[in-house]
Amino acid sequence: MLGKMLEKVHKNSPIVHCITNYVTVNDCANILLACGASPIMADDISEVADITAISSALDINIGTLNSNTIPSMFSAGKKANELSHPILLDPVGAGASTLRTETALNLMHELNITVVRGNMSEIKALFSTDSNTRGVDVSEADAITASTLESAAEMIKRFAATTNTILVVTGETDIVADKERVFIIHNGHNMMKRITGAGCMLSAMMTAYLAANPNNYLEAAAAAVCAIGICGERAFTRLDSNGGNSTFRNYLIDEIYKLTPEILEEGAKYELR
Amino acid sequence: MLGKMLEKVHKNSPIVHCITNYVTVNDCANILLACGASPIMADDISEVADITAISSALDINIGTLNSNTIPSMFSAGKKANELSHPILLDPVGAGASTLRTETALNLMHELNITVVRGNMSEIKALFSTDSNTRGVDVSEADAITASTLESAAEMIKRFAATTNTILVVTGETDIVADKERVFIIHNGHNMMKRITGAGCMLSAMMTAYLAANPNNYLEAAAAAVCAIGICGERAFTRLDSNGGNSTFRNYLIDEIYKLTPEILEEGAKYELR
Amino acid sequence: MLGKMLEKVHKNSPIVHCITNYVTVNDCANILLACGASPIMADDISEVADITAISSALDINIGTLNSNTIPSMFSAGKKANELSHPILLDPVGAGASTLRTETALNLMHELNITVVRGNMSEIKALFSTDSNTRGVDVSEADAITASTLESAAEMIKRFAATTNTILVVTGETDIVADKERVFIIHNGHNMMKRITGAGCMLSAMMTAYLAANPNNYLEAAAAAVCAIGICGERAFTRLDSNGGNSTFRNYLIDEIYKLTPEILEEGAKYELR
Repeated sequence: MLGKMLEKVHKNSPIVHCITNYVTVNDCANILLACGASPIMADDISEVADITAISSALDINIGTLNSNTIPSMFSAGKKANELSHPILLDPVGAGASTLRTETALNLMHELNITVVRGNMSEIKALFSTDSNTRGVDVSEADAITASTLESAAEMIKRFAATTNTILVVTGETDIVADKERVFIIHNGHNMMKRITGAGCMLSAMMTAYLAANPNNYLEAAAAAVCAIGICGERAFTRLDSNGGNSTFRNYLIDEIYKLTPEILEEGAKYELR
Repeated sequence: MLGKMLEKVHKNSPIVHCITNYVTVNDCANILLACGASPIMADDISEVADITAISSALDINIGTLNSNTIPSMFSAGKKANELSHPILLDPVGAGASTLRTETALNLMHELNITVVRGNMSEIKALFSTDSNTRGVDVSEADAITASTLESAAEMIKRFAATTNTILVVTGETDIVADKERVFIIHNGHNMMKRITGAGCMLSAMMTAYLAANPNNYLEAAAAAVCAIGICGERAFTRLDSNGGNSTFRNYLIDEIYKLTPEILEEGAKYELR
Repeated sequence: MLGKMLEKVHKNSPIVHCITNYVTVNDCANILLACGASPIMADDISEVADITAISSALDINIGTLNSNTIPSMFSAGKKANELSHPILLDPVGAGASTLRTETALNLMHELNITVVRGNMSEIKALFSTDSNTRGVDVSEADAITASTLESAAEMIKRFAATTNTILVVTGETDIVADKERVFIIHNGHNMMKRITGAGCMLSAMMTAYLAANPNNYLEAAAAAVCAIGICGERAFTRLDSNGGNSTFRNYLIDEIYKLTPEILEEGAKYELR
């Protein structure tokens, strides 16, 4: 089933409009090209609606948000809603500053957002009053573990229901939920925490999966999570004793480039509840 | 002949001032260092004239233009014209938004631009009324093919004549033209479309070639096109079955680093009409 | 001794707030992750104080400073001073424009800066009236050579004394000085000049070393210089005849990832005067 989601990305080659941070933007563009999509980055208020209009989906990432780009996020988002394009919000560092938390909440309030993808600290900063954000990385207290998985999955499903949004929480185990169904995903490799942008790249790529699968957003989101996890596993296998995180980053994008629907279908480790 | 152009870059090590997008800026800096030039990125209105003054050439790339950097492009451009430095304009995404198209046209109107380099959709958006821009990539309808090559070359030459600018249109086949002469270039590899920034990198590097060859702008532009094409071919040869687009990007910059005037001279596949 | 400095980084995993340029920001984030630290990039005036507050140290890099980010540098710096966090200033291109020189001098005047790290042209632009800045790279006239080493070391120590700051001047030979002691460091490889960001990466990583070693700033700074130098040497050893500057950049970050306190301790080549 999940392999089909990638097949559609390959077939449709969607243009993805990204308003994203300048830290990982190059990796986001390359991973979009790797999976068969076409990236366009644009964040000036006087062009974002135009750019959204020629795209198929919108990725809003607040990793280096600023007073110029925040209004652009709203403008692009409104246009995307008008055109019924899917919108993904990556609330990087929500909880780490008032600006980030409030911007993410305002975006969720003003726009009809299809997917919110973050780590558990970020998601809790937005949906609960009990977060432990540690910068842009998940805090130990918030990390999903075997013993907290059941309760975490229930919580995420509840958050998804209150906002009618698909939530994707990535970590050692990943959770992809709407108000009815939950994917628990076991792909991925620890090494992904040692590069910058694994989350941002997933968000950008997931936006392409959403664009190509307008009738299966939940499956598309789950497929993207499995895809990057499988590619992380495969990239790690290629790494010899000389390799470090920079080589791993290159291999990860390479693996996305080589990923076929069959590899995705076979490698995906998940339960659907 | 084209090998000489690179010899001059190696010898003069020109400083190239880039006002460029944040997506591919790192690759642009590394490719400038790879070819023996020295990059300096600066885009604040209060310093761009200073920075242009200590540089030898100016690369203006509108890939992530915004209301702060647009005036800087004009300010740096005016200073470059005063100092008779060559200016290259890369109209990334012209046609995709009114802001991009108008900014590129205004820059061409206000400044004396040495070279405009883009894909066929971008060039048509600026010089004709018949473009089919698809984001930042060329549309299928606009791509140069064997059957459209003759008419495309004629059209580009005519555009070059009307603005007294060298035009460089890159694609499967590349066209480099002024009002009198046309280089048709057959170097390159399809894989270059699967990385972000192949065009931006070429523009940055071409600006260094222009800086180092003030009396041979047309040949310098053609040499840069052949150079990146040859390096794309060589990078692809190095790629094994594990490789993807991220590894290819690294190899491409590596090959520019290793490129000698002799390899360039021998590998260049072009006709001069 | 220097190995201990890295041990502390591994143990404490400090969060480093970077206000840095968009050219090399991705490499800075990856090198921070490589050495065991956690990067957070944020430059909007309305959040930088918040972000500094959840971090352990501040890296201010003026490589692509602009009218929006300059006030943020001051705001974050004041908060860091309040919290007694170390601040590193990387005055990229000081001397190349009035904006850069004055911003760096104002930052040094208004803030209590722990370390200033630059090349000799940049340091002279700030501390003397006799600089020969050539863009963002050191000019030949300013480069530290065997014959100028003694006088350069004395000069740097004197500059350090006048401002009560640790100065780190990197080049073929590196000098790390406070008003009393001088480390002369002989690690590194010429190839590091052929990639963008070797200096920026060192600054970011050094900020993590400072954060993790609050009682040994001078040793921490020297350890970071040795660390990147050793890793440059080791990265070059891995490079075969196919390799160029892009592969070298990846290997450099990889080596930082693999660097142990023992390798650092054994590989460090320095004199302490």
